[in-house]
Amino acid sequence: MVLVACSGGPDSLTLAAATASTARAHWFTAGAVVVDHGWSAEGSAASARAAGQCRELGLDPVELVPVDAGGPVSRDGSVARGGSVSRGSGSRGGPEAVARVARYAALEDAARRHGARAVLLGHTLDDQAETVLLGLGRGSGARSLAGMPARRGLFRRPFLGLRRTLVAEAGDALGLHPWHDPANDDPAYTRVRVRRLAGQLETALGAGTAEALARSADLLRDDADALDSLAADLLALARVAGGQVLRIDGEAVTAALEPLRAALPAVRRRALLAWAREVGCPGGALGHRHALALDRLVTTGRGQVALPGGRTAEVGRA
Amino acid sequence: MVLVACSGGPDSLTLAAATASTARAHWFTAGAVVVDHGWSAEGSAASARAAGQCRELGLDPVELVPVDAGGPVSRDGSVARGGSVSRGSGSRGGPEAVARVARYAALEDAARRHGARAVLLGHTLDDQAETVLLGLGRGSGARSLAGMPARRGLFRRPFLGLRRTLVAEAGDALGLHPWHDPANDDPAYTRVRVRRLAGQLETALGAGTAEALARSADLLRDDADALDSLAADLLALARVAGGQVLRIDGEAVTAALEPLRAALPAVRRRALLAWAREVGCPGGALGHRHALALDRLVTTGRGQVALPGGRTAEVGRA
Repeated sequence: MVLVACSGGPDSLTLAAATASTARAHWFTAGAVVVDHGWSAEGSAASARAAGQCRELGLDPVELVPVDAGGPVSRDGSVARGGSVSRGSGSRGGPEAVARVARYAALEDAARRHGARAVLLGHTLDDQAETVLLGLGRGSGARSLAGMPARRGLFRRPFLGLRRTLVAEAGDALGLHPWHDPANDDPAYTRVRVRRLAGQLETALGAGTAEALARSADLLRDDADALDSLAADLLALARVAGGQVLRIDGEAVTAALEPLRAALPAVRRRALLAWAREVGCPGGALGHRHALALDRLVTTGRGQVALPGGRTAEVGRA
Repeated sequence: MVLVACSGGPDSLTLAAATASTARAHWFTAGAVVVDHGWSAEGSAASARAAGQCRELGLDPVELVPVDAGGPVSRDGSVARGGSVSRGSGSRGGPEAVARVARYAALEDAARRHGARAVLLGHTLDDQAETVLLGLGRGSGARSLAGMPARRGLFRRPFLGLRRTLVAEAGDALGLHPWHDPANDDPAYTRVRVRRLAGQLETALGAGTAEALARSADLLRDDADALDSLAADLLALARVAGGQVLRIDGEAVTAALEPLRAALPAVRRRALLAWAREVGCPGGALGHRHALALDRLVTTGRGQVALPGGRTAEVGRA
């Protein structure tokens, strides 16, 4: 049993049709989950219509799941309609990110309830390219440029290598009638501005740029996985080694300077951030400048570093 | 003794003035090199004028170096004016890249002749951001997104952390009269299109995007350095280990499968590309698909991989 996450838009409706047809041919059960964010009467009507389309395609069960994750934002950043979840300054990426988290949680919950082996998502190569461009604006390194994986946990993205136009054409050829969300043309959304930018990028750099962005994402994801894994090994070693150590007053977990100093900078900085998270610094507030400051502390053996959450790191003895 | 590479444009003329003033204050010798590509009478006149301006600023020696690296391209990709160096399909990045290589060679040659300790380049944070965007279009991973280093060999880029507008304003405040190359507004050049795109990126993602791009470049350069260094260690081990090996008929240098299989994918693929270069495959023609094909060959132990230069890799015994 697999579930398709369907919004009723061109990509996910084509995915729903393809999944229904594949499930029939290969004798497995396929259902659909339609998430309704409740942002507008129009959006809720579109969700209900999408659920009906999924049933017509032969998917079963089809669930319409209401998710309350606040409203969309207007151009000035305030909530435009019906928002109720707090979007304080602490939530990175704003209301779009909050809605995304709520959506994935609802999909995982549905998968659990139905005992689904996988949840299929309709993201295309164009979505991947746009995700990389969004990551560029954050400037937080390989992981933020690594885009979306083709599989993670229960989630699968079978269209991640396909252009959006091709997926839409396939939907047309199948006689589908997808919903065109007007929000997809509203430049108040960062995602919409980035989508236009991706088009301009292809004009500036030539055809194949979206593919190149997606390929970069794949390569950088491998890089980030490798370096994270090496950093975890390094931290495990530094936790048990003696001599001079990095410590936070009152915290039992220390990190020995000697193995850290011997490591490659890109690995050491990742290990230092992992250590800071481990001793209780809020991960979302930790950034590159903290990595650099801890790095200096380790290599010089002198000074103090103020970390998020009011913690102070310094050098002591194990 | 240091040399400033000056084109007469706003960035490098400000750098020339700053260097001349610093050299006076700190009692060291500073000269300048102006490279004339000979692409147009206007460009040559601007180069001669830049050399004069450098002398007026007190730099000494000042050298005007003619470099023949072919002409600029017109919109259709053909050479527009006065080109003479062949720009065959083998030269990656086209005539702009050929000119860049020739320019750096001329600067290094001048540094050698004058015994200079460093050659200063006027690249700004905006140039760095544009370099990252250009790398995105190639899609060849961390190294192609890593931008320009603040120092490499003799070269130094003291303005790499400064916005272009700030550098230009400083030049205005110093009463400099830089040359505004009309080629900088000609969308026939990829670099000019990318410059416009960088502006659109800031509009789409918000202020600070150029800084974020530059920060990404720094982080990715560290990552690439770390992974290249690990790949070199892995290859050194794989070259001497026995058992099943990767080989190219007639080549003495083999790579043992066992240590390669035990390595992280991001490290293994870099080691495999390094091996392919070592056994004589032309580096410019090697790409991600060759890395993936060699990776499959190593992990499955079966098949053959066609490599650039007419070479075929397969599995044998040491």
